[in-house]
Amino acid sequence: MSPLPFELKKTDPRSKARRGVLKTIHGEIQTPFFMPVGTNATVKTLGCEDLIQIESEIVLSNTYHLFIRPGMDVIKNAEGLHSFMSWDRPILTDSGGYQVFSLAKRRKIKEEGVEFQSHVDGLTHLFTPERVIAIQEILGSDIMMPLDECSPYPCERKEAEIALKRTTRWAKRAKDFFLEECSKKNLSPNGKCQLLFGIVQGAAYEDLRRQSAAEIINIGFDGYAIGGVSVGEPVELMFETLEWVEPFLPKDHPRYFMGIGMPDQMVEAVGMGVDMFDTCIPTRYGRNGAAFTSMGRLTIRNANYTLDKKPLDENCSCFVCQKYTRSYIRHLSNTNEILGARLLSYHNVYFYVQLLKRIRSAIEEGRFVEFQKEFLSKYGSEIPPKKY
Amino acid sequence: MSPLPFELKKTDPRSKARRGVLKTIHGEIQTPFFMPVGTNATVKTLGCEDLIQIESEIVLSNTYHLFIRPGMDVIKNAEGLHSFMSWDRPILTDSGGYQVFSLAKRRKIKEEGVEFQSHVDGLTHLFTPERVIAIQEILGSDIMMPLDECSPYPCERKEAEIALKRTTRWAKRAKDFFLEECSKKNLSPNGKCQLLFGIVQGAAYEDLRRQSAAEIINIGFDGYAIGGVSVGEPVELMFETLEWVEPFLPKDHPRYFMGIGMPDQMVEAVGMGVDMFDTCIPTRYGRNGAAFTSMGRLTIRNANYTLDKKPLDENCSCFVCQKYTRSYIRHLSNTNEILGARLLSYHNVYFYVQLLKRIRSAIEEGRFVEFQKEFLSKYGSEIPPKKY
Repeated sequence: MSPLPFELKKTDPRSKARRGVLKTIHGEIQTPFFMPVGTNATVKTLGCEDLIQIESEIVLSNTYHLFIRPGMDVIKNAEGLHSFMSWDRPILTDSGGYQVFSLAKRRKIKEEGVEFQSHVDGLTHLFTPERVIAIQEILGSDIMMPLDECSPYPCERKEAEIALKRTTRWAKRAKDFFLEECSKKNLSPNGKCQLLFGIVQGAAYEDLRRQSAAEIINIGFDGYAIGGVSVGEPVELMFETLEWVEPFLPKDHPRYFMGIGMPDQMVEAVGMGVDMFDTCIPTRYGRNGAAFTSMGRLTIRNANYTLDKKPLDENCSCFVCQKYTRSYIRHLSNTNEILGARLLSYHNVYFYVQLLKRIRSAIEEGRFVEFQKEFLSKYGSEIPPKKY
Repeated sequence: MSPLPFELKKTDPRSKARRGVLKTIHGEIQTPFFMPVGTNATVKTLGCEDLIQIESEIVLSNTYHLFIRPGMDVIKNAEGLHSFMSWDRPILTDSGGYQVFSLAKRRKIKEEGVEFQSHVDGLTHLFTPERVIAIQEILGSDIMMPLDECSPYPCERKEAEIALKRTTRWAKRAKDFFLEECSKKNLSPNGKCQLLFGIVQGAAYEDLRRQSAAEIINIGFDGYAIGGVSVGEPVELMFETLEWVEPFLPKDHPRYFMGIGMPDQMVEAVGMGVDMFDTCIPTRYGRNGAAFTSMGRLTIRNANYTLDKKPLDENCSCFVCQKYTRSYIRHLSNTNEILGARLLSYHNVYFYVQLLKRIRSAIEEGRFVEFQKEFLSKYGSEIPPKKY
């Protein structure tokens, strides 16, 4: 493991919000931050030139998907995911665990790893904790995630316990393998190491979550993720899970709330001590005609936007809002024009990235609690602002 | 009709290639030029910011489609198509005639006009020569086309004759209506007029083509289009049709070869005296995984591009070719990622627009015939370079 890659710059005195910097091979990332999701080595509808314009400091990509298509030979040939997709800023890749459990056919969990059939061609593959690290070494991601067993919701206590324990054993194997690899060779061009995070599981059981946190922290990782959330459970339970785990997470490591979430959920979670987010919501909702704005979510196909010459968000400075009207974007969406999906996706990812930028400024300036209250109120959030 | 909007700058001494300038309300366009097709007020996958980067001086949009969706109320509310789609350079709109004949359901041709059912909602509408001009006045297009009857291929002589004669009568009504409108009011913000072109029909009959040309020219328009081509006839016949009509077209007016074509066909047609082109080929082929390059057409899904780190076209300076490899774009195309369609469309439209730019330089520098020969040979064209 490399020396501590995370520097905590400031902690909000009235909430648990934190402001820090995470150092990776491909540069520093200011925390808290949002990671646009580029499943197939592209954030859907957007090129890397768009993400740079959007000022995204990092993207997330999916190990499972890249392993299936284009496959490791193609990525090796490109000398890694960065040059394959023409992106020279940090990349986080997930472990593939979540996708194996949600997408793949006929999976078989063994102690060795998880055997599954590709959802594309039906071919059988085996992901072991070691192999998933080896794949992410080929990908060259700045932040790697270890293979975990993500419990569904709801989940029997017995099963959650088995998954938790296996996740710990796999995490240990992943770390051991990675340390071996590190000692064998210099993994990165500049001699620095890829980062490896740990994932806390334990489903919806408070004691299991705490047990998992303790075990994962005991192994020791560069950062800690709360996994197995946003898998269909009520929002209250999602935040409760965060509250159970957060006090156990070391303050000098970044915390990643996996797969979260809606804009107001991220604002809430930052106040509860989270540093990192990812979700495909801005692009998926964008392709389905929804725009996220400072005044809440807007469904562009609604008839009341037919003649609306205002931009998607009057408080937004992205090029879409400088250039195009709701009326025009509604027309594009109604006629299923790809440009409609693209403009909405661009705006939404911009909104997410800029929201985290505003959050960082608010923490720096000691006004995060006020920012949170104002944001949630304007946004029309149903989440009550937390009493700190 | 406004004073002659076309200025012929140079005629190639060894071919019929011409270099000129067409003046419109929204600025000058250098001829010969290519018009990217923006059917639904967007060149598929591209925004106007992309078209500006591509250096397109004009776009074409479709009256029929815009009339159906978003409808005239929305365009009126936006004060015209330019501000609706956020494009301040010239726009040519077609007459809707071709779409009524190819897309609409249960069309009924009468002397008054053509009655048809929308392909979207089945509602019945009537396009008359007058109404089509009125619609294009609302659109505010720089170049309008009059309602015509586009004969299919093949077409019985009797039917071709009827369509030709009706096209002439409709053209006369369109012009009369437009003159009336012009005298009634100032149609454009700066007091200049929209342009109105005439369309030559006559199917695959040499004498009918010549008759149509004579009748249309006799009415008098700002430019002349050869319609009813690229409707399924053999390529040789398409060029033959151009050869029949071209000698009759006045040299001091621009000539528009409607719906043409492949890159090598445009290069050939410029040498036969054409000034204007439009086709949805670069975007349609792009969405289907084809790239146009200086070395011919490339089908990106072919397995031999799996590990190919070259750009789509090594001689292209578009951002796609500066940034992305064939291997990456092939992957995007294989996974049906929207970005793949977008990158290929962008490159292809860039290739078309730049090809016309190179043609203009070649004519200016007196080396068009050499350029044509070299281009057709490198491109691997099956069209034999014309002997002039």
